[in-house]
Amino acid sequence: MESGPVVLVSTHHGERDNIMTISWTMVLDFTPKFAITTGEWNYSFAALRENKECVIAIPTVDMLNKVVGIGMCSGADTDKFAKFKLTPIPGKVVKPPLIKECLANIECKVVDIVKTHNIVVLEAVAAYIDTERKEKRTVHAVGDGTFIVDGRRIDRRDMMAAKIPKGV
Amino acid sequence: MESGPVVLVSTHHGERDNIMTISWTMVLDFTPKFAITTGEWNYSFAALRENKECVIAIPTVDMLNKVVGIGMCSGADTDKFAKFKLTPIPGKVVKPPLIKECLANIECKVVDIVKTHNIVVLEAVAAYIDTERKEKRTVHAVGDGTFIVDGRRIDRRDMMAAKIPKGV
Repeated sequence: MESGPVVLVSTHHGERDNIMTISWTMVLDFTPKFAITTGEWNYSFAALRENKECVIAIPTVDMLNKVVGIGMCSGADTDKFAKFKLTPIPGKVVKPPLIKECLANIECKVVDIVKTHNIVVLEAVAAYIDTERKEKRTVHAVGDGTFIVDGRRIDRRDMMAAKIPKGV
Repeated sequence: MESGPVVLVSTHHGERDNIMTISWTMVLDFTPKFAITTGEWNYSFAALRENKECVIAIPTVDMLNKVVGIGMCSGADTDKFAKFKLTPIPGKVVKPPLIKECLANIECKVVDIVKTHNIVVLEAVAAYIDTERKEKRTVHAVGDGTFIVDGRRIDRRDMMAAKIPKGV
């Protein structure tokens, strides 16, 4: 089953920044909370557990090869910002860097780690979107090595007016 | 931020079947586990807590008006299968029915409810896909009343060969 969009997660541990690729994000009701899934097997997990911060960076379809490449190597022996020619930019609140080339960046604090299910609950503390970028299509991992690119947009705002939070 | 595909969740409580629309699903690593978000405010929550079963049914773009309509009314006063002309079919394992008109149906057991974060962890026990259906495009909720339809598919199976679980 296809899940949420493929995102990059930037972390900071010791003196190093790192990036991982995940396709498992979930929005928790209408608050600025997210959940991602990762665990002990992942090199970035120690950074999330100790620094308790990360940046969720949303890449677009033109970055797919970098995104897949990032997911195929480990921060244990690779400087992924250098290898994939991505530009770290300091965030306002958290230590892990934003990724300049991405469409959007969300600075997050780790609110909780639900160990039994490897769920990391995040709260967004700052968010940025590159409005000048032409390519805005994100990709979704199917789970078998193929990806679905965003297609057209359908508007049902009228039907949903009663349930859409104000300000969205 | 856009999340996973919009899905229907069928539940059973007392003698009644019900359906809700959610767009928040997350795949937990490579096991047949899912997480969805819902809580006390939702009529289906009591069914999930007590019956501890549900069916995740994946609708396609041609069903979008029904999907939005299901999300805009409550099972407390509406028989949603009747109102939206959807056909319940008995599952093999769980009590809540499959939804015949959907592209795919996944029978699930509730493994855990993480109350602090309103996360319901599910384990898939049976899954079905309608292979004869022509329309296979799912939709993703942006969160502002608009929806993105699946676009084209990109294949990166070669790049990811080392990480794809066998049998996928």
